[in-house]
Amino acid sequence: MTEIAYALVDWGTSSFRAWACAADGHVLGERRSGDGLLNVADGGFATVLEGHLEALGVPADAPAILCGMVGSRTGWVEAPYLSVPTDLAEVARRSQLVPHARRPIHILPGLSQRGAAPDVMRGEETQLLGIVAEGFATGTVCMPGTHSKWVKLHEGRVIAFSSFMTGELFQLLRTSSILKAAVETETGVDPKNPAFADGFGIGFSDARVVTNALFQLRAGWLLDGLDASDQAARLSGLLIGLEFAGAGERLGRDGRHALLASGPIAGLYQAAFDLSELSVDRTFDADGCVRHGLRAAALLLHPERTES
Amino acid sequence: MTEIAYALVDWGTSSFRAWACAADGHVLGERRSGDGLLNVADGGFATVLEGHLEALGVPADAPAILCGMVGSRTGWVEAPYLSVPTDLAEVARRSQLVPHARRPIHILPGLSQRGAAPDVMRGEETQLLGIVAEGFATGTVCMPGTHSKWVKLHEGRVIAFSSFMTGELFQLLRTSSILKAAVETETGVDPKNPAFADGFGIGFSDARVVTNALFQLRAGWLLDGLDASDQAARLSGLLIGLEFAGAGERLGRDGRHALLASGPIAGLYQAAFDLSELSVDRTFDADGCVRHGLRAAALLLHPERTES
Repeated sequence: MTEIAYALVDWGTSSFRAWACAADGHVLGERRSGDGLLNVADGGFATVLEGHLEALGVPADAPAILCGMVGSRTGWVEAPYLSVPTDLAEVARRSQLVPHARRPIHILPGLSQRGAAPDVMRGEETQLLGIVAEGFATGTVCMPGTHSKWVKLHEGRVIAFSSFMTGELFQLLRTSSILKAAVETETGVDPKNPAFADGFGIGFSDARVVTNALFQLRAGWLLDGLDASDQAARLSGLLIGLEFAGAGERLGRDGRHALLASGPIAGLYQAAFDLSELSVDRTFDADGCVRHGLRAAALLLHPERTES
Repeated sequence: MTEIAYALVDWGTSSFRAWACAADGHVLGERRSGDGLLNVADGGFATVLEGHLEALGVPADAPAILCGMVGSRTGWVEAPYLSVPTDLAEVARRSQLVPHARRPIHILPGLSQRGAAPDVMRGEETQLLGIVAEGFATGTVCMPGTHSKWVKLHEGRVIAFSSFMTGELFQLLRTSSILKAAVETETGVDPKNPAFADGFGIGFSDARVVTNALFQLRAGWLLDGLDASDQAARLSGLLIGLEFAGAGERLGRDGRHALLASGPIAGLYQAAFDLSELSVDRTFDADGCVRHGLRAAALLLHPERTES
């Protein structure tokens, strides 16, 4: 039986995922739970972590590498942001060791961008480490989500990045605004829906009218009985189009592009790349990347326990 | 004692206001309450209205002119939208008479715009009628609010209009988004705060990056400890700047401009006009305009009860 050499943990605000790995990186066990930061009682981090690691059969002396909001000021132990530009290898080197723990527990830091375009990420830096480990070290990475990130990489260094509130705005407008009834649908947005392309065109080419275009979603539904699932697709296209326009302005449109996404959002962003006439040179699965990034950190922090 | 000749009522989703007027339009009494549509039980419209009119001493045979959401599909009696372009005098002519009421009760219709730029208003058309009655019949009217309206008038006709979700987005982002802590402040936005002008500049001149600029409000607060009241001013400027950019694109920037607003929002929009280098040729008080518009409708519907 292969021995567990170390554990990898992605610990966010609302979710917890852990992998038990062999020295060669092979995954021997996995745990997913809702034990995100919001559900961990005061000071309960060690207990929650050890409970999951014990269930995975991780030996008591095996190191654990953690990333995500667990390293934020409101998490377990703060791992202060690294300022960009920075080599992604620094993410492993500047990890914080949790004091007085029974095993070596390392928390990876997030990245910050200071100055005229302030920005932060926590969790995505580990996915980027995974992308670099997979051979995409120079180019622009698109990471869609609640706060989508666009990241400029050069030879494994993060040069600059920009976050966009796309996903959060979509959720707020869909669930809590006057648009609710106009975009209410049981199904997700179909990237092939022509309304998605319509919305994308407005957001991408005509950003100035976007808050008027939002109101039109309701008016078109009221006056012309436009279908709510079409209106939801139009809303999604509008916000993603705006993000693509902004990302182009912030980071340029040159060079190679990678798309890092899992699930339905991957299809929407692939469609958006097509509509914006940018090609996607590599696609990465978001779930896989965080594990690859954590493993890259393990290789650097505990070479004695890893075989590459 | 001057006799009450008719009653004017602005009846919205969350508020109810009524005025008792003499034949010459002089206001003899006023009632304001929270009896908006949301608080009126099924079929209770007549009871609520008559209760307020009785308290004002309005005679049982005096007509009442109503405007606002009371004429919507979910209101008392639907007053179907008038399509633009339309003369504002049509708003009075196409009012709906409430059937089987003890007095003549007229509900004014809203306006709709069909086609490529679908839009609706209900309540603002009555304010526009008031503006025209006050002598502003040709030009562009800016009506800030939850869903700000920009309206192109020509000789008392509404040519076109556009709504912007500015106020609703501000509230959603301020109260329910990740920006909440970064913009949390007890006081309102000060139009003289330089952060308001900063935000306006981005929204107005650089709309494509707006969803990135939103996230920067949080990042700047996290990294640099930027003051929450400055960040709230920046947020307000950003959304209002975007509205001004969009309104210019939809309706042009030529001709005379009127600003219709009451309270703190009037100061913010006056500052926004200054920043966008558009002059405000006339300013109107929103509260007064709805009354003037209702009175203009009364003049047309009940000439026997009015003296101009």
